[in-house]
Amino acid sequence: MDLSTYLKYNQTLVDDALKDCLPSKETRPESLHEAMHYCVLNGGKRIRPILCIAAAEAFCIPAKQALPPAVAVELYHCSTLVHDDLPCMDDDDLRRGKPTCHVIFGPANAVLTGDALMIQAFQLLAENGNSALSLELAKSAGSLGVIAGQMEDLAAENKAPSAELVEFIHMNKTAILIRAAVRMGAIVGRADPTELASLSAFGEKIGLAFQIADDVLDETSTDDILGKPAGSDLEQHKLTYPAVHGMVEAKAKVKELTREAIAALSPLSRNTETLHAIADHLMNRKY
Amino acid sequence: MDLSTYLKYNQTLVDDALKDCLPSKETRPESLHEAMHYCVLNGGKRIRPILCIAAAEAFCIPAKQALPPAVAVELYHCSTLVHDDLPCMDDDDLRRGKPTCHVIFGPANAVLTGDALMIQAFQLLAENGNSALSLELAKSAGSLGVIAGQMEDLAAENKAPSAELVEFIHMNKTAILIRAAVRMGAIVGRADPTELASLSAFGEKIGLAFQIADDVLDETSTDDILGKPAGSDLEQHKLTYPAVHGMVEAKAKVKELTREAIAALSPLSRNTETLHAIADHLMNRKY
Repeated sequence: MDLSTYLKYNQTLVDDALKDCLPSKETRPESLHEAMHYCVLNGGKRIRPILCIAAAEAFCIPAKQALPPAVAVELYHCSTLVHDDLPCMDDDDLRRGKPTCHVIFGPANAVLTGDALMIQAFQLLAENGNSALSLELAKSAGSLGVIAGQMEDLAAENKAPSAELVEFIHMNKTAILIRAAVRMGAIVGRADPTELASLSAFGEKIGLAFQIADDVLDETSTDDILGKPAGSDLEQHKLTYPAVHGMVEAKAKVKELTREAIAALSPLSRNTETLHAIADHLMNRKY
Repeated sequence: MDLSTYLKYNQTLVDDALKDCLPSKETRPESLHEAMHYCVLNGGKRIRPILCIAAAEAFCIPAKQALPPAVAVELYHCSTLVHDDLPCMDDDDLRRGKPTCHVIFGPANAVLTGDALMIQAFQLLAENGNSALSLELAKSAGSLGVIAGQMEDLAAENKAPSAELVEFIHMNKTAILIRAAVRMGAIVGRADPTELASLSAFGEKIGLAFQIADDVLDETSTDDILGKPAGSDLEQHKLTYPAVHGMVEAKAKVKELTREAIAALSPLSRNTETLHAIADHLMNRKY
């Protein structure tokens, strides 16, 4: 199977599983469940869940068995997007070419929708019964992970560019959750500690590369391709990698981190071809 | 030990455990961790965790062993208060006599603080390793539980009083989480299904009584005693039990539900004296 077929196949698998785990839109409160569907089933690329699945597959675990953590990571990710877009946060009106949650359902319902998606992620993991997965998500998501990154990201607006600060934000806001997605796949695959360390390094490096590539694309791409206003980082005075290190250095860093990520896979006596291909694909993506 | 000593003793136990489970205020991002401490260590009565402990004790489990679920329920409860108070939600400036989170830290940080507390609750349960407890909290907290209640509560403002709607809101917004607290104590105590059913009924009834008593006190008490503006339900056009059924009926309902709660304990061959005493105490509380 070539990579684009693989990505498409697993995107559908994840989309179906996401839909299955949400209460139907006819369930009371209807507007809450409608908002949850709207924010989750939105044509997302499902990078995080697919990385989780690919990591599990490296340990000969079928995709289906990795779906609960894969879907949980995506639910949590969606919840952060809903809260990030709120008027009191980044105040974004458009995501993936569609109006954001609070534009359609109002800010109060958007707060509750994000909360409900977050809880749904942990419910799915609890139903699965493997506490190691819940712990991985919670630690990566919490006040020492994604939330820390978002907090410093907001606080960094209008601040002087700082290499240390941009790295803290990228590591926490983005890389930790991508690393968690990879690690959760490896945990399902009963990876030993050495294998888990290799995959953690892989996940972290592609996570950092992913965020720098995002910053680059925000400056160099168009509204149509991104599904949101290009240049919004600049407009919101966000602290970005190109702002600190320049565009040339930023593009080089994406390549360097991707090389390092792929190198981290080499000690593994597992079939990591797919993970390797995804890393290359992410480096070269245009949106 | 008399009840007020018992409550005080366990309040301290819970407060210490809450403090222990939060990253220190010196941990980066400092303002996030400061906000988490501020919103959690606020002199709360700790009714939910104490009910969890008392339920576990009925099964001869020492309080200390019930602390992880007890503390997790309280963390989750605190997270809902932070989000409820937001300007785009109930827009409350005062809680327990102190400025609310968003007044001190701003709305964006308040959104993130609530998120972080929610995740911390699930992290604590994951560290404890009993998925049944995580599942109980997630199901009670999510879009078919507390969030459903908050959603309908917001939507009900300015709507015509309806007995069905006020019961849906009270059940979901309040009773389900109090029931979860009791059930989690019973789960730690390895209650059998019949015992769990009895304690579920107990938790649900006192939860409903608790919320009706809250509605009554909001109309009949003073700012000083409540630590927040009395009459705020009326001012915010909230749908309350007295608004639907009248004050006399509301007060009678609190007593009736408490009687039913205590009756639900009677089939248990366990020492439920403390649970009984807490139910009476909640019925007679003045704040």
